[in-house]
Amino acid sequence: MLKFAINKQEFAKKISVAAQAVGSRTVDPILQCLLFKPENGAINIYSTDMQTFVVAKLPVSEFDGNDFFAVDAKLLEEIVKNIDEDEVIFEYNFGKLNIRSGKTSFNITTYSNPEKFPPLEFEKAGISFEIETSILSEMIDKVIFCASTESAMRALNGVYWEIKNKYLRLVASDGYRLALVEQMLNVEAEIDFIISLKSMKELQNMLSGTDEPVIKVTCDHKKMSVTAGDVTVITRVVEEVFPDYRRVLPKAFKTRISFNKDEFLEALKRNMIIAKRGNDKVKLEIGENVMVLTSQSPEYGEVREELNIEKEGEDLIINFNPRFLNEAVKNIDEEEIVFNFVDELSPMQVNSKDMEGYLYIVLPVRA
Amino acid sequence: MLKFAINKQEFAKKISVAAQAVGSRTVDPILQCLLFKPENGAINIYSTDMQTFVVAKLPVSEFDGNDFFAVDAKLLEEIVKNIDEDEVIFEYNFGKLNIRSGKTSFNITTYSNPEKFPPLEFEKAGISFEIETSILSEMIDKVIFCASTESAMRALNGVYWEIKNKYLRLVASDGYRLALVEQMLNVEAEIDFIISLKSMKELQNMLSGTDEPVIKVTCDHKKMSVTAGDVTVITRVVEEVFPDYRRVLPKAFKTRISFNKDEFLEALKRNMIIAKRGNDKVKLEIGENVMVLTSQSPEYGEVREELNIEKEGEDLIINFNPRFLNEAVKNIDEEEIVFNFVDELSPMQVNSKDMEGYLYIVLPVRA
Repeated sequence: MLKFAINKQEFAKKISVAAQAVGSRTVDPILQCLLFKPENGAINIYSTDMQTFVVAKLPVSEFDGNDFFAVDAKLLEEIVKNIDEDEVIFEYNFGKLNIRSGKTSFNITTYSNPEKFPPLEFEKAGISFEIETSILSEMIDKVIFCASTESAMRALNGVYWEIKNKYLRLVASDGYRLALVEQMLNVEAEIDFIISLKSMKELQNMLSGTDEPVIKVTCDHKKMSVTAGDVTVITRVVEEVFPDYRRVLPKAFKTRISFNKDEFLEALKRNMIIAKRGNDKVKLEIGENVMVLTSQSPEYGEVREELNIEKEGEDLIINFNPRFLNEAVKNIDEEEIVFNFVDELSPMQVNSKDMEGYLYIVLPVRA
Repeated sequence: MLKFAINKQEFAKKISVAAQAVGSRTVDPILQCLLFKPENGAINIYSTDMQTFVVAKLPVSEFDGNDFFAVDAKLLEEIVKNIDEDEVIFEYNFGKLNIRSGKTSFNITTYSNPEKFPPLEFEKAGISFEIETSILSEMIDKVIFCASTESAMRALNGVYWEIKNKYLRLVASDGYRLALVEQMLNVEAEIDFIISLKSMKELQNMLSGTDEPVIKVTCDHKKMSVTAGDVTVITRVVEEVFPDYRRVLPKAFKTRISFNKDEFLEALKRNMIIAKRGNDKVKLEIGENVMVLTSQSPEYGEVREELNIEKEGEDLIINFNPRFLNEAVKNIDEEEIVFNFVDELSPMQVNSKDMEGYLYIVLPVRA
């Protein structure tokens, strides 16, 4: 037997964090479940897809019994979301879970062998540091779109974490572009590892869902655990070597332009209407105080946009995948954007004028 | 040559109405185009999928030239939506269309044989009547969800229009349920026809997009045309016979219950969580002042809801597809809903207490 009453809203929050680590339809059905288990005077929920483990302490003031049970995560999420009243009563007995609230009563079949739920492999070893939730959240937003979703190189299907010289650095690349963000940390030790894109997205959701202002990260060469209040997410690292990103950072620039972010994004958006029906290319013609953006489609026609810029250095004609420019510029929160070019074949570097600690590199495409 | 300037917002409205009648990818490419043609001192846009024809007068104050051209509708819609400035200039010359606005310039390839655009078959013959736009719009909303999307009977894949005894009546049914709505009209003549579901949706969009308070309908046994201000939509009727709906209307009731709409929808929503994982059935147990709703899933369990009701007549146990109850009750704008039952095997009739002119019939399912 296990019985507890819980506030619907509080419960829904915990469930939604835990449900993210739940496996998909095709795998072992126990990985589609949440495990409820009393431990140390509280009830914890566990979930895992064998790559990420989540443990969340339930906000129940008291509970009866010491049984544990596993129940389908999606079903439970849907039930809790659709309940009317604030208080929900859970009562588990001999494989049957009764969920009651007001005039509603669900009798749910639970997983028959809850003792087979994968155990949490977790020792509190490795390097630890604290960081503001909002800062880590922003850092992830600024690089995650560059991680590859399909590269054959597993190292690129994730985000590289590097703790070195008292800095935390996150780097992501799909081989055509690279984003890097860094933040000072009060940590002496040094370590680096790769976290898969799926796990990064789970972490992103966890950070945006928590009210905790500061989170704690603990990591070693096998796993990273992130704790925000009552919720801990433990992720296996990807056992691959990330390419040396320092090699692709450009050294000297010949052309530097700056322009208004929104005007550029608008012009680019219209170019993309034609580019996506053609060769997925935008041509930038950089002259004195003006940049002309053009895209072509053999079937539909062409588009031409003029944009006011400030320029230092040489004139230049260079082609890019417009999506790569769009995603980079969109992720910068400043009004003025700076592009730094070497030549029409070398990586271009995007900065905002006033922002430190962020770097975006994108390779041009051939004309 | 054809040249005109147009306000972006006004143009976007007309385009979006016309673009609905545009054919899909697989058919003749000219059916994916809009035709622009000067006629009687104005420029009209035409579109068609050979089932529906749309003609919309463009809000241009003046224009030059008397050429006509056809251009891809989706491309044009996307361009106009993404233009910054209010004024857009169109200039057509020898197959090339230039669209300019501010610092933006599109050179678009047009369809090479615009004279092949299907001609509009339209004589102003048949029965004509005027009706308030909002009234017809509501009538359609109240029946369209009952039309079948997949019945082998083509007559059921649409909405039946009947003008008789000074009433306009719309009826839709998928064989399991039927919705009927009627409205008094000042028309002596009698006619009936079927309009396909796709054409009904185009009409629905046209009505929700227009600012005209009153629309004009003209129909004969071959087509129906609806005119709202500058826009006319002409639809071929489906040449089938609609089943005699009067035969399924129940005559005498043994049980009648009334209850609160929102409470019922909430209880039903929770039943559907289990029903959709099981046999897609909700059981209603109607007793004195209370109705119990239960659904079962062999794999996941069961749910039980109690609802306060007022009852006249006999107790009853009856099963329904919960989606059919949900869609019916959702479409009634009153707080109090009335269900009228004959017995557990006969069609049930849904009314709202205070609303005239609407009727919904649904068949029960076996226990």
